[in-house]
Amino acid sequence: MAIPQPYLLFLGDVTDPLAAKTARGIHVWRPEQCVGQNRLPNCTVSLGLEDLDIDIAVARGAKTLVLGTANAGGFLPEHWLDRVRSAIRAGMNVASGLHQRLTDIPELAALATEFQVELFDIRHMRPALPVGNGKWRSGKRVLTVGTDCSVGKMYTSLALEAAMRKRGMKTDFRATGQTGILVAGEGIAIDAVIADFIAGAAEALSPANEPDHWDIIEGQGSLYHPSYAGVSLGLLHGAQPHWLVMCHELGRQHTRHLPHHPLVSLEDCVQANLQASRVTSADVQLAGFAINTSNVSEEKAREYCRQVATQFGVPATDPVRFGIEAIATLLNERG
Amino acid sequence: MAIPQPYLLFLGDVTDPLAAKTARGIHVWRPEQCVGQNRLPNCTVSLGLEDLDIDIAVARGAKTLVLGTANAGGFLPEHWLDRVRSAIRAGMNVASGLHQRLTDIPELAALATEFQVELFDIRHMRPALPVGNGKWRSGKRVLTVGTDCSVGKMYTSLALEAAMRKRGMKTDFRATGQTGILVAGEGIAIDAVIADFIAGAAEALSPANEPDHWDIIEGQGSLYHPSYAGVSLGLLHGAQPHWLVMCHELGRQHTRHLPHHPLVSLEDCVQANLQASRVTSADVQLAGFAINTSNVSEEKAREYCRQVATQFGVPATDPVRFGIEAIATLLNERG
Repeated sequence: MAIPQPYLLFLGDVTDPLAAKTARGIHVWRPEQCVGQNRLPNCTVSLGLEDLDIDIAVARGAKTLVLGTANAGGFLPEHWLDRVRSAIRAGMNVASGLHQRLTDIPELAALATEFQVELFDIRHMRPALPVGNGKWRSGKRVLTVGTDCSVGKMYTSLALEAAMRKRGMKTDFRATGQTGILVAGEGIAIDAVIADFIAGAAEALSPANEPDHWDIIEGQGSLYHPSYAGVSLGLLHGAQPHWLVMCHELGRQHTRHLPHHPLVSLEDCVQANLQASRVTSADVQLAGFAINTSNVSEEKAREYCRQVATQFGVPATDPVRFGIEAIATLLNERG
Repeated sequence: MAIPQPYLLFLGDVTDPLAAKTARGIHVWRPEQCVGQNRLPNCTVSLGLEDLDIDIAVARGAKTLVLGTANAGGFLPEHWLDRVRSAIRAGMNVASGLHQRLTDIPELAALATEFQVELFDIRHMRPALPVGNGKWRSGKRVLTVGTDCSVGKMYTSLALEAAMRKRGMKTDFRATGQTGILVAGEGIAIDAVIADFIAGAAEALSPANEPDHWDIIEGQGSLYHPSYAGVSLGLLHGAQPHWLVMCHELGRQHTRHLPHHPLVSLEDCVQANLQASRVTSADVQLAGFAINTSNVSEEKAREYCRQVATQFGVPATDPVRFGIEAIATLLNERG
């Protein structure tokens, strides 16, 4: 299953810049796959891309209209439908990260069949999967893990892919969440698979590869998150990582959405992740830390990263502020 | 969702006693809920229950026909269908643990609607669930965990329920697998929920209760099983156990179905389970060991249990050979 690229990014008529997070992520990481943006009259958010009508976008090669904004409740508003219809009639596939399925709207499903295009409901795609088997496979794998949800695992994975490719390393980002899947054009929404198949999904996502090929696997959740740790552990086992990159947000006091649940210490979190990884990857190592330091001054951020690097003996950086070169270098040198 | 009891246990025409494992489990643990058995002419397996025709079973109060035998491939054989039809026409619900869904057979679905009975596809029941929140709730909870799959977690849970009830403790078995669900008449097949909801399912399964009420929650898989550990961890977090009972098979060399994967040591497994449990249950403790010793002599079994009990300072027993009184006593005394 691959979502045909390049994309036309549909922003609807949103006014909250945060609502366009997915579209922005695609544009930041795959600008060459974004032909332009398409907006409704009252939209106040822009990605800085050229505004293109459906027909012009198709003429410029756009293969898929991406519904790249989140909507309250995850529903497709009635007044967005016309644009979706036009895209289908113009021969474009449509990809959506909304809760409501495009394929559940009979009119769109019929139209897609008529015009021979595909509808991709990212959140709901469940490929037929085997259960995991834990057998060792060739190729190198890095998994981003975290002290919590929403601490920058996707950003870190994509930044690492870019830095490693710049060094000439054969590297592929492997997506496990919906924005990541749209960025990569493929992947598995790992939190949407049936529980029995989490590890199997991670194995299928990062199959055996050439010995010098690197998969950078997007982590999800945290072993210490009371809601999602099962997903994190299955992903950890299936990924069989040679290296872990620990993602963290400086100053976060409690687990996201759970004010009663204090955040784990970096030390406990690193130990638990290494220990759990050893079940399928005996020689797993920590490659470094990617820390979101946006809450403090640059000086304080540097000081904190230095302190973490000293404590654990591996690079620690804020990939947004300071780049991720140190971790890419370590992986390049130590293989 | 509760499966109406008592049951008529349908054995089909199986000839392999192991194929009737589910039916046997129901009969062993809930004899009072088994009105009788129903077999096809060539069936060589018996539970020792009275053979009853559909009509007689209904007259004696049977509410649900249980397809209690596994079939190669998990399909419902054509020549079993007649008996299922008769049951529906006689007003019985039908519960199945087969992969193939009863509700996917249009004729049965229509018949069930006509006769106002329900079809229960145990493997596929997915109640609408919230994600887990890890908030502390009242009541006492025991979770059975294990070094592997198929080491007796269900048996141990049910044996413990029986032993605690005998002591007058308010106790409920909480089922997470299909046989357990048929025994209890309710539960959640935890390996069949969407990955994001594993912990939420476990929380829903063992809700807040009276302070002196005990839930005995049926564990699944193992934190060290490369295929299913995600399920085990989500269940562990959602269960919020006060006590763990570690289940193990003496002499098992490798993880079930994975000959390349050696079994974890009891010590590592206990430590990992306690550590992971503390994420949602700070004061979790080990209540004891339930060990399947069927591969060795009774003398050797006693010696091994003694040795484990000494090493860990808690009771260790084979619940089939020696009962589970020691663990029930510990829970009763230490609360």
